[in-house]
Amino acid sequence: MPLLRRRLVLTVALAVPALARAREAAVPVEAARSIPARPLPVPGTVSPALQALIGAPYPPGWDTVPVDAAGWRALQTASSAAMAPHLPALRAALRVQVERSSIAGVPVFVITPDILPPANRDRLLLHLHGGGYVLFPGEVGAGEAMLMASHGGFRCVSVDYRMPPDHPFPAALNDASAVWRALLGQRDRRRMAIFGSSAGGGLTLATLLRARQEDLPLPGAIAPGTPWCDLAGAGDSLQANAFVDNVLVSGSGWLAGAARLYAGGRNLADPLISPIHGDFTGFPPAILTSGTRDLLLSDTVRVHRKLRQAGVVAELQVFEGQSHAQFISPGVPETTEAFREIALFLDRHLL
Amino acid sequence: MPLLRRRLVLTVALAVPALARAREAAVPVEAARSIPARPLPVPGTVSPALQALIGAPYPPGWDTVPVDAAGWRALQTASSAAMAPHLPALRAALRVQVERSSIAGVPVFVITPDILPPANRDRLLLHLHGGGYVLFPGEVGAGEAMLMASHGGFRCVSVDYRMPPDHPFPAALNDASAVWRALLGQRDRRRMAIFGSSAGGGLTLATLLRARQEDLPLPGAIAPGTPWCDLAGAGDSLQANAFVDNVLVSGSGWLAGAARLYAGGRNLADPLISPIHGDFTGFPPAILTSGTRDLLLSDTVRVHRKLRQAGVVAELQVFEGQSHAQFISPGVPETTEAFREIALFLDRHLL
Repeated sequence: MPLLRRRLVLTVALAVPALARAREAAVPVEAARSIPARPLPVPGTVSPALQALIGAPYPPGWDTVPVDAAGWRALQTASSAAMAPHLPALRAALRVQVERSSIAGVPVFVITPDILPPANRDRLLLHLHGGGYVLFPGEVGAGEAMLMASHGGFRCVSVDYRMPPDHPFPAALNDASAVWRALLGQRDRRRMAIFGSSAGGGLTLATLLRARQEDLPLPGAIAPGTPWCDLAGAGDSLQANAFVDNVLVSGSGWLAGAARLYAGGRNLADPLISPIHGDFTGFPPAILTSGTRDLLLSDTVRVHRKLRQAGVVAELQVFEGQSHAQFISPGVPETTEAFREIALFLDRHLL
Repeated sequence: MPLLRRRLVLTVALAVPALARAREAAVPVEAARSIPARPLPVPGTVSPALQALIGAPYPPGWDTVPVDAAGWRALQTASSAAMAPHLPALRAALRVQVERSSIAGVPVFVITPDILPPANRDRLLLHLHGGGYVLFPGEVGAGEAMLMASHGGFRCVSVDYRMPPDHPFPAALNDASAVWRALLGQRDRRRMAIFGSSAGGGLTLATLLRARQEDLPLPGAIAPGTPWCDLAGAGDSLQANAFVDNVLVSGSGWLAGAARLYAGGRNLADPLISPIHGDFTGFPPAILTSGTRDLLLSDTVRVHRKLRQAGVVAELQVFEGQSHAQFISPGVPETTEAFREIALFLDRHLL
């Protein structure tokens, strides 16, 4: 019965797969499987607003890396210029006030919700924005903090940190750390959290690693969204979700260029650059957010697992059908859901 | 500057993507994106034992659906016959005793760990095995319960429920429910949990829905692993992870046939068949487990989100690089990690 015999591999796989495979190595291991071309429909399992995002084509230019500093600078400027005209409408829709300020000499935006619940009056969230450590200078970078302020009722300080090409690592980390140090002088650490997504999620983790190096207290909680924790791109989803994710599309596009640009010749395995290589022992409670199509889903779950291995309270939420950082999308019901979850978590763990 | 202009779509996507896309619908929506063919290497971010599993080729026969009852019966018998010879070694390695018994007339296996911690002496876990509601009759189906007993130190009762082709829905649910009802007569519901993966995860949820219909108490916690909660296969990862998952490979293979076989002509949208359509209000704390390559990752996260929307304490763990139910693999470090996490969660929530 050759058909039955061949089926056994399948059936074994569902019950106790490793016994035969991993130990006896009876089945040959392929170095790289070949995935066939196929259509990927828009799922009907998400809101219409999210379906519109999922159905959008790849962003033109995703596979182009600027060839020089001028090219990066132009991209950087354009990234914020494109969104800046929408900011007044965004602030109004989210009912937040945004004030430009500076802390420890670092430019920041202070975001205050029109309605600040009494429980949050003495709390403060430090926000570190995403964009591959190279995009979204200025107020556009604070968009995620506006969502958090609005949906969570938290006052936020969003750091407009320095970025390459003019300021590679560790400028961004120095800025984030300087603001954190200054905030510690004003407020109980247990009333503060640090959050941010993508590069901002990686920078959140790096800021904690740096704080520990400098014997500074850690915040009461953190919320790294789809953290870019491994700039060398070893995570499995960088391959598995390539061309499935319609935001980043592939790790071999501009993202790889941004990693090299940010590291500025340093080792990408430096824990302050790729925090997955850091020690998370003693980290505060963390909530992580990603999507099933996210190119950095693996970065997210690797951080989650490593936090748990270190005994840290860590929760994971993964949203159906979403590509990289698509939970940061104003006007989408799943965005409200994601930020309310994060807010609930922070409320539970902050003093 | 056409290049810059084209890049804006990308950059906007990272900051506040929906504002332009979802509201103004400025970007055309594709009904189905075409994903190119590509190689998928084995990731270096998991243990060598797990790498061996991830590197295994597709199970031969994954895309063949038996054409008649005799074909299904042969597959069913073979699924267990293949693993049965390994059971003594598995029991010995896991240090568990397995006893064949029956509860309320339903055949069960009672699994007792050699070391039963005092805290777990009065606790009991009800296990419902996976296999598409058609595979793994007999003791082989209890393999997952042996892992739970071993890594968690819990006594488990694994239900050898009736299956198609001879016994389609609701036979399995009737059996699981009968055992649950009987166990309630012996023990405080708060000292019991229900768990299982794949079809066993779906059946766990269905058993709770049925218990509520019948005004029976619910358990103190549940642990549905990668629950097959939508037999119509609407979850996005059934498409996105097709050919990426090397256990199920695709939802259009034998899995679709198993769904029809189990439903026996009933509506796949029946919440007792596809519990994603059920009401999870009042469910006990739940921990869900999946993998980044899992064909049922979407089923898992949809259940997680729906539980959270219902206000239920629900935690999610997703393992790097794993295909469907690969966390149930003896001898793999990530398996120990997964089951210890589940055990910790149950310990926290059971009386």
